[in-house]
Amino acid sequence: MSEAAERSENIPAGKGKEGIPNGGNPEKSKEDFDLASIYVSDAQYNRNIYFDTSPEAVRLYLRYNHWLAKVLLYFFILVDLSLALFEEPAVLPLPIWATMLVELLCLLVFTIRLAHYAKVIPRDKFWKDPKNICIIVILLLTLVDMIIYGALKATNCYGVRWSRVLRPLLLVNVTEGRQLRRAFRSIRNALPQIFYVFLLFMFSLLMFSLMALKLLGKRGLKTIDGAPYFTNYLEIVFDLYVLVTTANSPDVMMPAYNSSFVFAIFFILYILINTYIFMSVFLAVVYNNYKKYLKEEVRQLVRAKRHKMARAFAVLQEHREEGGQPVVSQANWNQMVRLVQPDISNAHRELLWSVADDKNQGYIGKVAFVQLVDLLNIEVITLKSRPHPLQSACPALYLSAPSPFILRTFNLKWAFVIVYDLIILVNAVFIGLDEENPMVSNSEWVFLALYLLEILLKLYVFEPKAFFSRHSFWNWFDTIIVVSALIATIINSAMKSTGGYTSRQILDIVFILRVLRLIRVVDSIKRFRAIINTLIRIGPAILTFGQLIIVVYYIFAMVGMELFKGKVKFFEEDSTDPDKAFCGNTDLKGTAFAQLNYCKNNFNNVVSSFILLVELTVVNQCSGFVAVTHVSARIFFILFHIMVVIIIINIFVAFVLEAFFVEYSVDKSDLQTSLERKIEELELAVEQYLEDNLVNAMETIDNDQGAGQPVDNRPALMFKIASKRYRTVDALLQRMFEADLDPEDFAENDDPDGNFANPTFSSA
Amino acid sequence: MSEAAERSENIPAGKGKEGIPNGGNPEKSKEDFDLASIYVSDAQYNRNIYFDTSPEAVRLYLRYNHWLAKVLLYFFILVDLSLALFEEPAVLPLPIWATMLVELLCLLVFTIRLAHYAKVIPRDKFWKDPKNICIIVILLLTLVDMIIYGALKATNCYGVRWSRVLRPLLLVNVTEGRQLRRAFRSIRNALPQIFYVFLLFMFSLLMFSLMALKLLGKRGLKTIDGAPYFTNYLEIVFDLYVLVTTANSPDVMMPAYNSSFVFAIFFILYILINTYIFMSVFLAVVYNNYKKYLKEEVRQLVRAKRHKMARAFAVLQEHREEGGQPVVSQANWNQMVRLVQPDISNAHRELLWSVADDKNQGYIGKVAFVQLVDLLNIEVITLKSRPHPLQSACPALYLSAPSPFILRTFNLKWAFVIVYDLIILVNAVFIGLDEENPMVSNSEWVFLALYLLEILLKLYVFEPKAFFSRHSFWNWFDTIIVVSALIATIINSAMKSTGGYTSRQILDIVFILRVLRLIRVVDSIKRFRAIINTLIRIGPAILTFGQLIIVVYYIFAMVGMELFKGKVKFFEEDSTDPDKAFCGNTDLKGTAFAQLNYCKNNFNNVVSSFILLVELTVVNQCSGFVAVTHVSARIFFILFHIMVVIIIINIFVAFVLEAFFVEYSVDKSDLQTSLERKIEELELAVEQYLEDNLVNAMETIDNDQGAGQPVDNRPALMFKIASKRYRTVDALLQRMFEADLDPEDFAENDDPDGNFANPTFSSA
Repeated sequence: MSEAAERSENIPAGKGKEGIPNGGNPEKSKEDFDLASIYVSDAQYNRNIYFDTSPEAVRLYLRYNHWLAKVLLYFFILVDLSLALFEEPAVLPLPIWATMLVELLCLLVFTIRLAHYAKVIPRDKFWKDPKNICIIVILLLTLVDMIIYGALKATNCYGVRWSRVLRPLLLVNVTEGRQLRRAFRSIRNALPQIFYVFLLFMFSLLMFSLMALKLLGKRGLKTIDGAPYFTNYLEIVFDLYVLVTTANSPDVMMPAYNSSFVFAIFFILYILINTYIFMSVFLAVVYNNYKKYLKEEVRQLVRAKRHKMARAFAVLQEHREEGGQPVVSQANWNQMVRLVQPDISNAHRELLWSVADDKNQGYIGKVAFVQLVDLLNIEVITLKSRPHPLQSACPALYLSAPSPFILRTFNLKWAFVIVYDLIILVNAVFIGLDEENPMVSNSEWVFLALYLLEILLKLYVFEPKAFFSRHSFWNWFDTIIVVSALIATIINSAMKSTGGYTSRQILDIVFILRVLRLIRVVDSIKRFRAIINTLIRIGPAILTFGQLIIVVYYIFAMVGMELFKGKVKFFEEDSTDPDKAFCGNTDLKGTAFAQLNYCKNNFNNVVSSFILLVELTVVNQCSGFVAVTHVSARIFFILFHIMVVIIIINIFVAFVLEAFFVEYSVDKSDLQTSLERKIEELELAVEQYLEDNLVNAMETIDNDQGAGQPVDNRPALMFKIASKRYRTVDALLQRMFEADLDPEDFAENDDPDGNFANPTFSSA
Repeated sequence: MSEAAERSENIPAGKGKEGIPNGGNPEKSKEDFDLASIYVSDAQYNRNIYFDTSPEAVRLYLRYNHWLAKVLLYFFILVDLSLALFEEPAVLPLPIWATMLVELLCLLVFTIRLAHYAKVIPRDKFWKDPKNICIIVILLLTLVDMIIYGALKATNCYGVRWSRVLRPLLLVNVTEGRQLRRAFRSIRNALPQIFYVFLLFMFSLLMFSLMALKLLGKRGLKTIDGAPYFTNYLEIVFDLYVLVTTANSPDVMMPAYNSSFVFAIFFILYILINTYIFMSVFLAVVYNNYKKYLKEEVRQLVRAKRHKMARAFAVLQEHREEGGQPVVSQANWNQMVRLVQPDISNAHRELLWSVADDKNQGYIGKVAFVQLVDLLNIEVITLKSRPHPLQSACPALYLSAPSPFILRTFNLKWAFVIVYDLIILVNAVFIGLDEENPMVSNSEWVFLALYLLEILLKLYVFEPKAFFSRHSFWNWFDTIIVVSALIATIINSAMKSTGGYTSRQILDIVFILRVLRLIRVVDSIKRFRAIINTLIRIGPAILTFGQLIIVVYYIFAMVGMELFKGKVKFFEEDSTDPDKAFCGNTDLKGTAFAQLNYCKNNFNNVVSSFILLVELTVVNQCSGFVAVTHVSARIFFILFHIMVVIIIINIFVAFVLEAFFVEYSVDKSDLQTSLERKIEELELAVEQYLEDNLVNAMETIDNDQGAGQPVDNRPALMFKIASKRYRTVDALLQRMFEADLDPEDFAENDDPDGNFANPTFSSA
């Protein structure tokens, strides 16, 4: 959408910084710190916005990046998108004036946001950026459409809200949609190659169709519906195209196969070439391009990141000795880090400093400073070794006789895990049984009690803060599921005992929670854990694909609703309407669509459109819609298939493949980045105290601490690198291509294009 | 199947060679040349057979490797496999004694072949090789089964020919089945990892099924057939498993979706996790393992190849000067190459020698000798620049006035190509029209004449030998298609004009040939050519997958025929049997299977079994067979899906992906191997005269030869490296991992295991 702008953003020009004093070592002003912290946080989150460096613009830019502003923006985008629920054809119909009013409000918010952005960046940059132009065009077109539509409706004419297809494009063009724009760019870059393979595929399809026409057309065969078989060329092309999606296999082949064995060879050859070979080639082409362009983009991203850090350094630098290299003092560093990450603990900040300043000089050079952004992106868990809260609150109980016994039994790690895995298995069997049986329904309380006991025992042995640290996914998962199940079960039995009436919804929730509780079992098998962890790690990136899919689905849903709304009607189960047998449309009489009761697969509102599009993604069944409209409706479905299945799903598969390959190779090679290694060399990562999951944690306790009780000679501070988690999707992507990026190469001085030339540097 | 043996074959022990004289420079005996040429040809075709080096064993080994012996072996394997066509349930029933007799003959042939092999290799090696044991066990079991079956049939009892499932295993275990064994090994190596992902996938499936049971089982929903919906746990597990194959989408979801929108979320989540994410993870795991193990195997292959060359060198070596390095003289070299490749031209052999002996010393050292195998594997086209045959036969015509004119017009390459592309397009339209129209049917003669003219013109301009060289795929393709079409059309019109009767078969062939002729158009578009060439290049490797698929299909077909034969009957189109409506089985009354007329999808003979298995590979539709037998029949279909779709198809996709990546990276990097470069450096690859396709050839003619006529100062010999084609699949595989293999590292001396120690060397 806005590639040129995105690229140009990567190369901030080195001007507009005359206001910064750099003769001698003057006190840095608040503005300097603001500016430096913005550079650092831009580098940290890979924001590539070319903002003005005047103090006022910096303040505006800080406000622009405030989390509340972003949340509000996304909230209004969501509101704008979900207006489709209330507009004709609506799930919940609202009067036109109401939806119009809400949409106007949304447009206003987007305009304000854009105006804010225009104030932050220089005027010429603003107008050169295609994504801003895009937003302005979308806003104007929407306004025009609303006026026309309103006028038409006021005069009772037929109007189409065509601008609704533009709504999801806002998601792509807002400044925060970087990931999404990158995904679209990656698609666009792969398009030429995909196009050639697609042409070849179409050529093969046309050849096979021609052969089918010649071989089968004149034999007087009939389809199952009694229609002539393979006599119309375009019909054949379409049928064979659908065969690639496997939707009409083996139906399309049956009439020919029934007439002779030999024709099966034709279809088998077709499936081999077009379904297996060509679809693999599509994946290969998409994957290859995806990797190639992503690599290039990530490389640019890293360059931009390092350049931003160099600019931040230039703002904060001072000269310790005449003619020496510029440095940044610890005091300035501390102040800046506090601005960048207000929630950072002093201990953590000191840890980072001691990594950066490894010679304990009290100041750091440029190289160490530039690494700061990577240091900040490594999540470090800080733990103070303090006594268990229960020990302080109630020492008599905590140090009583049974306590060491509990701790000792608990430390029989494998036994504990096996016992609870067995409990989960028994629970699974009980869930499968009929819950009407009082024995079964009462057993639920026993299981709940056992799970609660497990959590309490763990809390007793571990420090609560460690147990509920941010990275203990399974601890959080367990606790939330068990507590929710407890609450839901109590409400359920309360309702049952009082009114004798059970809410279906609450029961459903109880069931879901009960089943979810069983998932825990995978965490105790090491092999499974590795796979699951990879899946959890690629989770955030899958969200980008989720947005991508929503943009495409929304556009197709809007178009589909205009084309097909009301053509197929759904009647409730208990309806006695005679039209029910053919979905309320006589064109569907006797078709497979009506017979299989697909009536609810329609475009009558945005929710059923989305569900239908998911079904179409899985299997391209569109015969019903062709029957109720026109043969040309097939174009809609073929376009959808090309866009979603051939392109987006393949990119998704490519991403999962790449993520798994990275995981596999990382497992074998050195897991930690050079910076993490540095921290470990300095022995600052004092103890591997807390692992992501309990099993490992217990292992460490076994080795280090005997009965698991706090030992006095433990260091006062403990750090643990949560190296396997990445705060941002960019960080994961960067890791994916880390092998090609030299962590020591800053490239900001020897850049041949001079893009990274820094005026403050040249004056030094 | 026989990994240990395969591996041990790679490491021939260094003994049993005491008979070879190596003191001084004695005349080499015929046995020496036989032995050396066997080593070289084993290295060339990557045969890893540890044969005895006694002269008698060498002679036997030569006979063992004779092409006729191999063809006969494969012929009898084919006969053995195709016995299934004639055995109960048969396509063409033959009496039991006839099939039994043929099978006994096959068994005899296999036994003779095995006995031959036992004579070639040392006794202890023979019994240590699992693949020999496998063949013996298969032969014995088959014999036992035949006796039991014969006895049972003689007493009119029911018997099962269970040994038929063993037949395809012969294909895997014969010495020539190296590629297939490697494919099976690669699958077996990937199994542990696939297994863990599969367990996790099954866990997810079981959890979703449990949730579905709890959420939907009690709502009293009905399927489209009126059966209770989602009330039986195992049924749910199976339905959801089939949903992963997309076969029952969206049917399985419709009852729940009809009752409430909310349940669609459940199914969408299920499809996202199990269909998209897990299937991608399967691909990732299979791909990753495939790459890893294949790399290792190819590395071992290269080591073994180099070692064999070193042994051949040891046999032929002599000492030019006292204490100097051993060398091989040109005379010995020539004699050996003639033995290895009897059809090699003198010019080609001299070219190879001049590449190996780049200092023109008359002898070559070990390093150059070891490269010989790579030199031999590079296909070189030798062309003598001689006058056009027409020029010699009929100079008056060839050098007449219109001749230069024709050559000149013909050299307007682009015009010629465009004209013929247009002709093809027009032809495509005419093919699409109704051929009953006399204008259309007569136009066929015009097109045939045009195509013939094109071929004749090309033959006129190029030397016929160059035009029909082995690598001119499209020239061959064109000529064969056009000539066959001409013959078929003539036969067709002859039959029409004489008897007025047109044979349907001949007409079909004519149609197929006409359509195939159009394929030529893709060759004139450069982008397409690249893709097509890659596809052609991976063709041979796809044959290995073809064998793999046939082995698996055959086993499943045999089992399926025993389980399901005769359960579903097919009635001809014109049959009036009332049973036709339910495929002759009352259990199928009213099922979708019978309604959709799937009756011919049955296991009633081996041909329809194979076709059905292809359909099951595409979409797993098995409800019919479950209906006619038992619910447990589903196990058969699930096993088939796991084996074929999850494992083999994924390996196929992995292979296509890898092949395309190699093509993409090779296109960008240096295309030629170090050896090919060497040939070019020596300016022995005199002219790039003949390209794989006409377009390029004409290009070169344009540049070099003016009007395309032979120029006198052309060198007498011209070589062209057909570097892009590989004689063996191994060569393609080696190219795939070429980047990791150093062409200059022979590793035969510094091997830590001492596997490559060579006694002739140590005596030097």
